[in-house]
Amino acid sequence: MFQRPKGRRLAVKQLAVVGATGAVGREVLKLLDVRGVPLGSVRLFASSRSAGKTIRFRHKDIVVEDLAKADFRGIDIAIFDTPDDVALKYVPVARDAGCTVIDNSAAFRMHDDVPLVIPEINGRLLSKRTGIIANPNCTTAIGLMALWPLHREFTLVRVTGATYQAVSGAGEPGIEQLEREMRETTGVPQTNIARAPAFPHRIVSNVIPHIGGFDADGNTSEERKFQQEGRKIMELPLFASSIICVRVPVMRAHSLALTAYFERRVSVQRAHDAIDSAKGIVLRDDPARGVYPTPLSVTESFDCEVGRFRMVGGVANALQFFVCGDQLWKGAALNAVQIAEYIIAQ
Amino acid sequence: MFQRPKGRRLAVKQLAVVGATGAVGREVLKLLDVRGVPLGSVRLFASSRSAGKTIRFRHKDIVVEDLAKADFRGIDIAIFDTPDDVALKYVPVARDAGCTVIDNSAAFRMHDDVPLVIPEINGRLLSKRTGIIANPNCTTAIGLMALWPLHREFTLVRVTGATYQAVSGAGEPGIEQLEREMRETTGVPQTNIARAPAFPHRIVSNVIPHIGGFDADGNTSEERKFQQEGRKIMELPLFASSIICVRVPVMRAHSLALTAYFERRVSVQRAHDAIDSAKGIVLRDDPARGVYPTPLSVTESFDCEVGRFRMVGGVANALQFFVCGDQLWKGAALNAVQIAEYIIAQ
Repeated sequence: MFQRPKGRRLAVKQLAVVGATGAVGREVLKLLDVRGVPLGSVRLFASSRSAGKTIRFRHKDIVVEDLAKADFRGIDIAIFDTPDDVALKYVPVARDAGCTVIDNSAAFRMHDDVPLVIPEINGRLLSKRTGIIANPNCTTAIGLMALWPLHREFTLVRVTGATYQAVSGAGEPGIEQLEREMRETTGVPQTNIARAPAFPHRIVSNVIPHIGGFDADGNTSEERKFQQEGRKIMELPLFASSIICVRVPVMRAHSLALTAYFERRVSVQRAHDAIDSAKGIVLRDDPARGVYPTPLSVTESFDCEVGRFRMVGGVANALQFFVCGDQLWKGAALNAVQIAEYIIAQ
Repeated sequence: MFQRPKGRRLAVKQLAVVGATGAVGREVLKLLDVRGVPLGSVRLFASSRSAGKTIRFRHKDIVVEDLAKADFRGIDIAIFDTPDDVALKYVPVARDAGCTVIDNSAAFRMHDDVPLVIPEINGRLLSKRTGIIANPNCTTAIGLMALWPLHREFTLVRVTGATYQAVSGAGEPGIEQLEREMRETTGVPQTNIARAPAFPHRIVSNVIPHIGGFDADGNTSEERKFQQEGRKIMELPLFASSIICVRVPVMRAHSLALTAYFERRVSVQRAHDAIDSAKGIVLRDDPARGVYPTPLSVTESFDCEVGRFRMVGGVANALQFFVCGDQLWKGAALNAVQIAEYIIAQ
């Protein structure tokens, strides 16, 4: 929740949400409300297709404005959730108009002069920050929430593993494809006009080991981001990651099954202690009682959850675990709102 | 398909399917039919609850007999798919009556005098075999179909990884739970009387990192089987496996995302060649064109499929890949029918 600095009076900030009608944009608005973030006016932008719609926020109907005609002057903070190409075009416009931009696209994440921030890990970079602040990839954010406390305890070297990624990670089209295919499977008449599928294969009753585009080595962009963004956020230039990213027929929340290798010897007990003393991640590791993370257990939760900690047979410096997080929240909207809260509190 | 040895006349065998009304038993009957396995009479057994039902096989209605009253004399081959406790009780009865028993339970797999067989790997153990032959765990069978050709090329040391296991791996109750929860989700009125859930949590729109019972080290029985059975089948007493087994909302076919470490240096090209020259597994590895295995692509396929082969950054002797197989077929019924075919052809 928003922490009001003691004894200080905050200047009320004007905030914009760009991509307000998308899956992440709607979660940003919900979180600004439920976390009680103190704001002046809120303005909403989207593509011309959605412009003119109204969205209710704090008992007011706000008309969605056309991003192509946006004038960002007077807006203090703009949270962008758009495709990369839209961000490349409009994020600099907002910044040049004086906004502090929190951008959830991949367009600026690896720029040297743009901090890439998970507040629990490198929130110190936000001090007096203006300009562009990048929000990490959803899978990266959730994985690092578990890896960072373990890194501080054992010094991280590399990870291997596999993901279980929700369809809402592909936005509204992903949600629609799974809903449509579930209705087909259960024999419910189709009422909506179907848009083009979001995924290259059917997703109901299937898993698809393909998220993002492939490079010459056979890795997808999603798989590469984990190493690239992990190195930058943890300031670990030699961190190596080899994961496979897999879409599963889950509406919401991503899971990662990771094997992490460290410089030092590890133990499950010390891993538990490290997670217990970390913020934003909760230990759920009593599997014989059915206590472990699942996508449903973290849906609409501020915290990520981690469990199923085990040693790897015969390897003294490796740990396996299963971590889940709501990718629309900590993987996107919540992390952006937390960054906004830091900026407002400064 | 069944290969009739040239120039030999086969004695017609009498065959029994025990657990004939279950998810695997029904697949055994389907495969005996579609593979044209030459058989004399077929007898079907199940619990007293299912006794008296009829099942159609090769244009005849066969009455299901009560296993508790079974007389196995005169039956040459009995394919058992029952819970472990039922197998412990009735498999020895069938063997003592002179049957060659192919048992899909875990009850006898690790017995020293019981061969544990995947025909493509250690089918030579079936030569003139009578008594009990064990069929491996479904996840183990599918994983080993990919690992064995790689082992012959590079010499396998250990694997880490994660699975994506279908609900039908838990039999009819697993299928029913997913169907029921999908109907609830899409608003279809419930017509069937619901049985107890097969899984400890909801499975629709969820994944559950819990298959089998937990030991003191936090591994499940399903996770331990991969190492135990892998060591026995591949005759690799030091093979080490650390995997997490996860249930996913998929009706049919298991997937495994594995990282395998070998004694020798590896390459993706040589891995491709090794898979290409192996039987029972097909290379599907042109991901930029959408060619990789999925549960839907292997459903009701005799062959397992493997793809997404990649080197692990900075490690010369490790490979990652994604393998899928129909766990009701190669993971259970097909492997058992293949063993029966070997025995009939002797």
